[in-house]
Amino acid sequence: MTSFVVIGHLARTDGAFTLNDLPGSGGRMDILCRCVNASLFLSHDLRRDADCYLVLCGGPPPPKTIRFSGNEVRSLSPDERSAGALIKKALEIPAGSKFRDAAPGISVRKGGLEQLLNEYTFGVLDEKGIDIRKAEVFPDVFLLSDHLNFTDNEELQVKQCPRYSVGPVCIHADQTITIVQNELDRRRCGWV
Amino acid sequence: MTSFVVIGHLARTDGAFTLNDLPGSGGRMDILCRCVNASLFLSHDLRRDADCYLVLCGGPPPPKTIRFSGNEVRSLSPDERSAGALIKKALEIPAGSKFRDAAPGISVRKGGLEQLLNEYTFGVLDEKGIDIRKAEVFPDVFLLSDHLNFTDNEELQVKQCPRYSVGPVCIHADQTITIVQNELDRRRCGWV
Repeated sequence: MTSFVVIGHLARTDGAFTLNDLPGSGGRMDILCRCVNASLFLSHDLRRDADCYLVLCGGPPPPKTIRFSGNEVRSLSPDERSAGALIKKALEIPAGSKFRDAAPGISVRKGGLEQLLNEYTFGVLDEKGIDIRKAEVFPDVFLLSDHLNFTDNEELQVKQCPRYSVGPVCIHADQTITIVQNELDRRRCGWV
Repeated sequence: MTSFVVIGHLARTDGAFTLNDLPGSGGRMDILCRCVNASLFLSHDLRRDADCYLVLCGGPPPPKTIRFSGNEVRSLSPDERSAGALIKKALEIPAGSKFRDAAPGISVRKGGLEQLLNEYTFGVLDEKGIDIRKAEVFPDVFLLSDHLNFTDNEELQVKQCPRYSVGPVCIHADQTITIVQNELDRRRCGWV
């Protein structure tokens, strides 16, 4: 099982955004939709051994976390709007401190990075890390940020975590996930 | 300069689709939008040395080709809807046999794969190719298909072209482009 946790610094925590303007009204929710798809989609299939957690910090407070479980998710298509509609639906149900199902394979709770750090051991994806092709071991959970850098407080929270880089140029979060999945596919299949 | 040519077998050749339903009304235009973005986007920047050609075959006939030139394109955002709006705009201007500008860096002409094959030497991205990590040379132009296999006629047209694979599992076209760009970035920067 591989999980990706993506921090959406500006992403709204209520359903008050329009699918016709995911970047603006959703607080760059388009990025998070692409990250869900990069985490979970194969050609004509889903990665049943992958999860994607979206940490929405854009308010209104408190932050919320949405989990997409590849093993259970239904009715997800690879276009951004499809993931966006499911996120919107998840944000419209009352959220508590534990994950609550909003749709098959999609659940939501209050809380953000701090709770996740208490539950999992993370590896951080950023440009300062070691090359993933050279890494001997991988974490089960990868953390990455949206289009903004980690905040000072987030950096403090993850400063003990190992860091991994996917390449020499700075690319989008969803592209980073795609490259990690490719490296994992290769190792599983003896292609490295 | 690296170019990606993506065949959209069902993609409409007129502007008669809605941005609210790129997959259905556009003939899986969502796939082509993601391919444009995977070809051209870096984090907070564009790849000025990359082009993306979309070959739209979904009718009405004849097929059309839209070119996105990373060196000249403006007002492209990384969400699918942004690329979709520019494609729609390009399809609404009269197209001839030569590329005509529809917006900065975006041009359109009548014609499809056959014309491109007369102009460029292709490498084909598909699962039957050699591993890109092991390839000694790369073509300047990569051809790939959308969610459908190449047709028998397309296979015939490209049967002399070298083939490259990005990994052991079958993934989306845009994910494939992302992995090729990563391999090229690594080679340029001495990361391999």
